[in-house]
Amino acid sequence: MKKLQTAVVGVTGYAGAELARLLLHHPRLKGTPPVFAGRIDEKDAAHGVPLAEIHPQLANNNGNAALRLEQFSWELLANRGVDVLFLATPHEQSREWVPEALNRGLRVIDLSGAWRLTKAANRAVYAFDNEGTGQAEATQSQSVYGLPELHRAKIAGAHLVANPGCYATSVILALRPLVAAGLVDTTRGIVADSKSGVSGAGKAPTAKTHYMYAADNLSAYGVFSHRHTGELLEQIGIGGEDIIFTPHLLPIPRGILSTIYVYFKEPQTKASIAATYQGFFANSPMVRIYENALPQIQYSVRTNFADIGFQVAADGTKAVIVSCLDNLLKGASGQAVQNLNVMLGWGEAEGLE
Amino acid sequence: MKKLQTAVVGVTGYAGAELARLLLHHPRLKGTPPVFAGRIDEKDAAHGVPLAEIHPQLANNNGNAALRLEQFSWELLANRGVDVLFLATPHEQSREWVPEALNRGLRVIDLSGAWRLTKAANRAVYAFDNEGTGQAEATQSQSVYGLPELHRAKIAGAHLVANPGCYATSVILALRPLVAAGLVDTTRGIVADSKSGVSGAGKAPTAKTHYMYAADNLSAYGVFSHRHTGELLEQIGIGGEDIIFTPHLLPIPRGILSTIYVYFKEPQTKASIAATYQGFFANSPMVRIYENALPQIQYSVRTNFADIGFQVAADGTKAVIVSCLDNLLKGASGQAVQNLNVMLGWGEAEGLE
Amino acid sequence: MKKLQTAVVGVTGYAGAELARLLLHHPRLKGTPPVFAGRIDEKDAAHGVPLAEIHPQLANNNGNAALRLEQFSWELLANRGVDVLFLATPHEQSREWVPEALNRGLRVIDLSGAWRLTKAANRAVYAFDNEGTGQAEATQSQSVYGLPELHRAKIAGAHLVANPGCYATSVILALRPLVAAGLVDTTRGIVADSKSGVSGAGKAPTAKTHYMYAADNLSAYGVFSHRHTGELLEQIGIGGEDIIFTPHLLPIPRGILSTIYVYFKEPQTKASIAATYQGFFANSPMVRIYENALPQIQYSVRTNFADIGFQVAADGTKAVIVSCLDNLLKGASGQAVQNLNVMLGWGEAEGLE
Amino acid sequence: MKKLQTAVVGVTGYAGAELARLLLHHPRLKGTPPVFAGRIDEKDAAHGVPLAEIHPQLANNNGNAALRLEQFSWELLANRGVDVLFLATPHEQSREWVPEALNRGLRVIDLSGAWRLTKAANRAVYAFDNEGTGQAEATQSQSVYGLPELHRAKIAGAHLVANPGCYATSVILALRPLVAAGLVDTTRGIVADSKSGVSGAGKAPTAKTHYMYAADNLSAYGVFSHRHTGELLEQIGIGGEDIIFTPHLLPIPRGILSTIYVYFKEPQTKASIAATYQGFFANSPMVRIYENALPQIQYSVRTNFADIGFQVAADGTKAVIVSCLDNLLKGASGQAVQNLNVMLGWGEAEGLE
Repeated sequence: MKKLQTAVVGVTGYAGAELARLLLHHPRLKGTPPVFAGRIDEKDAAHGVPLAEIHPQLANNNGNAALRLEQFSWELLANRGVDVLFLATPHEQSREWVPEALNRGLRVIDLSGAWRLTKAANRAVYAFDNEGTGQAEATQSQSVYGLPELHRAKIAGAHLVANPGCYATSVILALRPLVAAGLVDTTRGIVADSKSGVSGAGKAPTAKTHYMYAADNLSAYGVFSHRHTGELLEQIGIGGEDIIFTPHLLPIPRGILSTIYVYFKEPQTKASIAATYQGFFANSPMVRIYENALPQIQYSVRTNFADIGFQVAADGTKAVIVSCLDNLLKGASGQAVQNLNVMLGWGEAEGLE
Repeated sequence: MKKLQTAVVGVTGYAGAELARLLLHHPRLKGTPPVFAGRIDEKDAAHGVPLAEIHPQLANNNGNAALRLEQFSWELLANRGVDVLFLATPHEQSREWVPEALNRGLRVIDLSGAWRLTKAANRAVYAFDNEGTGQAEATQSQSVYGLPELHRAKIAGAHLVANPGCYATSVILALRPLVAAGLVDTTRGIVADSKSGVSGAGKAPTAKTHYMYAADNLSAYGVFSHRHTGELLEQIGIGGEDIIFTPHLLPIPRGILSTIYVYFKEPQTKASIAATYQGFFANSPMVRIYENALPQIQYSVRTNFADIGFQVAADGTKAVIVSCLDNLLKGASGQAVQNLNVMLGWGEAEGLE
Repeated sequence: MKKLQTAVVGVTGYAGAELARLLLHHPRLKGTPPVFAGRIDEKDAAHGVPLAEIHPQLANNNGNAALRLEQFSWELLANRGVDVLFLATPHEQSREWVPEALNRGLRVIDLSGAWRLTKAANRAVYAFDNEGTGQAEATQSQSVYGLPELHRAKIAGAHLVANPGCYATSVILALRPLVAAGLVDTTRGIVADSKSGVSGAGKAPTAKTHYMYAADNLSAYGVFSHRHTGELLEQIGIGGEDIIFTPHLLPIPRGILSTIYVYFKEPQTKASIAATYQGFFANSPMVRIYENALPQIQYSVRTNFADIGFQVAADGTKAVIVSCLDNLLKGASGQAVQNLNVMLGWGEAEGLE
Repeated sequence: MKKLQTAVVGVTGYAGAELARLLLHHPRLKGTPPVFAGRIDEKDAAHGVPLAEIHPQLANNNGNAALRLEQFSWELLANRGVDVLFLATPHEQSREWVPEALNRGLRVIDLSGAWRLTKAANRAVYAFDNEGTGQAEATQSQSVYGLPELHRAKIAGAHLVANPGCYATSVILALRPLVAAGLVDTTRGIVADSKSGVSGAGKAPTAKTHYMYAADNLSAYGVFSHRHTGELLEQIGIGGEDIIFTPHLLPIPRGILSTIYVYFKEPQTKASIAATYQGFFANSPMVRIYENALPQIQYSVRTNFADIGFQVAADGTKAVIVSCLDNLLKGASGQAVQNLNVMLGWGEAEGLE
């Protein structure tokens, strides 16, 4: 039987490197390495370059020395029999390419923000070139939000999976179970104070990714305006007035910790909240509920786990929830592979341990 | 005229090192270096050791080679004509020593949590040995909370100044002006999400201060239970139900950033909030209000400034406030010297720029 | 056929955590998790504690929740049918236990410095309690230095493998090929300037592993006296006067970079040195030779590769060699698993990619 | 009497920020802040911008809010009565401007590499546009290498001071005393293995200054080819074959540590080497000799001290020397102020403690 053939476009970035690593070691994909291409704006620079030169950590003596970046074209994908296309590309590029990819019968897992949002109002922050066209609306209607813990069944049948944002994954997994159970008094307002390592800001050298800016520092940004807010609202099922979401830039390479503050409609206990989470995630191998401690970035980083812990106030009226994950794995490439597993009917955690 | 003679007990810690540096370079104290002593539990180890051996960064070729740690005794202080005593000691030691120091006519600036709290209920978390004794109550009644921006006049005449906690300074300076002006809807609940560098955890080597635990990590702790909560309530003027305060351990040596979430009773604007802060801090040289950006740890660290910035939601109903300071300076030793300046009638910022 | 049963003593430390992770995921060991025990000095504290509590990053929802630390005893190992014993214990404990383990027919991979050194003079720095006893000498004579790139054949048949020091691995792999080929003018003196991340200093909280000491710092230590020097001399095949080895403590969690300076007897070229290395490591899957760049810690960390690069001076008289590895993997636990693979006749890189 | 008026061109970089801070607080310059200008390539962007916006850490409520960057012109300097011009500019800009500045009677302290090197062969690496012109040669002949510990008397009378490179300062101060005393066997070869924090790489965002590249990493660069090599040779008084100098990029914001390996002609002792250093630096307030420990970056960083320590081998034939300094202070802006002090006949350490 033909083995699945994948392709990764945008392999030169941080998410691309992790995706390459995961796919090269995935037990179901042995012997069929992905087709690798750079981002379209890098095609001349990256074309023909050995993967091991761009990401030396992926090199070894024997195996993948022959792997090189190829110049993207639809013919390349057709000639190589690609079945599933991963896009680790800027969102505008994904907006342009995904409709064509679907036309050509490819299944797509898109890591950008291009196709995550159902409501036009929430997409406004992106100002997409093709917003409102019939083709874009048709594509959006096919898109499934790629959070397996919420949409496992739909992902299995999807042709287009919109892989969630890293911050969004961190906050949604912590809040959706409590909101879905009707426990949260949203009229009191939820606060999600999130902190992310620098890899979340991308590989382009900028003033804000300079070591001297990021190291020994902490800064808040995107207050009342971060792009991931729309995902929070749609996936948690709350309104824009119900939450304040503030991201911060942490002086670490990778990892996200979100500290989330909620008030309850009725008093809760440690046991009731634990049961709510355990029930919601009963079939989710990539979520770990902490019952006797709070998660920390150090324990989830370089894993595909989302770690969730909490503390309920003595009077049961409110809780502080702590949610941790690795922004490049559960927040990006690991989740993309998890989605691949679900789409193909493989074990959800295969290749992710 | 006799120059002021100071003494520092507990100079071996991080706050002690900063205090030594500031006092050795203070323009009013040239030629009269402090009397230095270790903590009482370190007296044998530290007695007679050159200051430059304990803190090599303070060494130079010429000047202070002769400075050594001395073994604390009340006679030592008397013989050396000490006027002002700084205690950078554990709170139990401060609880024991301060009454005696006051009896002996010394003016005391205590950096511990021993004498900061007016209400017995708020002190309960410390479980002080001499809680409730007449002597302790008499001492507490003399104590002035050493935040010059709130209590400048009382500090000027005080014999005992209780130097505030680092987290507390960060949160109080951001909230007191808004609460005092009656702007905050405390019934909606305030959230103070604070993050501190590792020096805040002290010099003792522990599992949590190990480089491998703190580096590349972020962790929340003291949820619903941190000791500084009592200071917040008393100084901001709110009740225990009105705020959730969560500290986090940041992977940086020093600096605190607090992200604070408030809802307003009536809609506010950027201008109205800026005016409130500018008015409150009009005579406070060590507070900087950011009007066009948010403060970051990198800009306040290694200064004695408290930096405060904010963003008001488009509809004016709520704001995110960001407050930054250096936990060893404005959060400890710099504030202690600021208090010294106020007590002595010197320029409030002398020796702190 | 009975699957191999391993045991790890000293799983609570950093090397122990990595060893546990590698053995739990080793393709040859699926379904037979190791027997885990703490260090003997931790037995009361650690006995019965879930592995996932000590190393939360190893936890998951399904699998290893049942794994707990057990109290070490020889009976435990016998009852559980242990074949291979890994000791991640202090060297004195290894000196005491290894003879007994061999008597009981166990094969041992010892990660400490207990059995690495052939010459008594080189062992003097350890001042072993049982130095010079007949039992110790008999044990030492069975010991094979566990660097597969040098001693693959002997390791295959060994009952006791002395896993090399992390610094030693880094320097030996860079120098042995050149010295063995007779290229190096040792009379000019070799310099090995090595820098290691903090995990190399162990998990015990000390003044030197405190975040505030290690972060934003660099310090040299063990000048002319580091314990790993004996391994360098014996394995490279040079005399004590031929090399200066200086370790430094780097402000990073893990990784070693050694910068090594050699003078040649006859002028060399980039090609001649590359050929020497490629020849020496032709059958070594865990060494990567860099021909067009220098290795960096970031590329070898969290892999089991030793990365070696070099630059030859324009006149061919000398070279600077750069050698990188992860001190917890190729410098400790990864190498231990590599040795296991060689001992068992498995693929040398199995479970290490 | 007219107070000295300074100007700083290139204040937007890291060295510029430190220079601004030092000059604004220099006791001899109170009330006469420098004229500040950006680099010529930044003039449009930076013209008129408040200093406090570019370097928020320099802001305060009262004082320097009025300070703004001005657009550089010779007329500006003339109109403002500038006496001493600091250039924190790229070396090509300094090559072009310094002759004109000298013509106009300004005294210049140039922080670039433009005028440090006496020998044309050593300057070749810079490929200066005006190399070999009469004007350039005349300017070079006036230039004094700005290391006060070596050239104090010449600096006092100089019109052009070429402020040394940061690595060069670190290595020269450690080696010149020993070479000048005739102790070093240069035929055995000296090794200088230097490590620098990221600020040494400048403020421009590049792939190598990206947080993700620099953090948790160490890399060697410029092997056999670093620009500072010429300074080492000329100032130490050795030939190109006598030393190997290798710089490394450390994952810290600032600080340099050089580990230096020398062989002696005749056996030396701890006492003889200490006496050699103490004698050489007897009148140098900014050098600290460590006699009982080795210096570390943490003790010299944020000071203007160069810290030197050493360990002599038991047989006296060789030594390892450790030299530490802050690359932005003693390695750049602090040294520039030290040179200003010497030029003006002020106390050499004024404004630097």
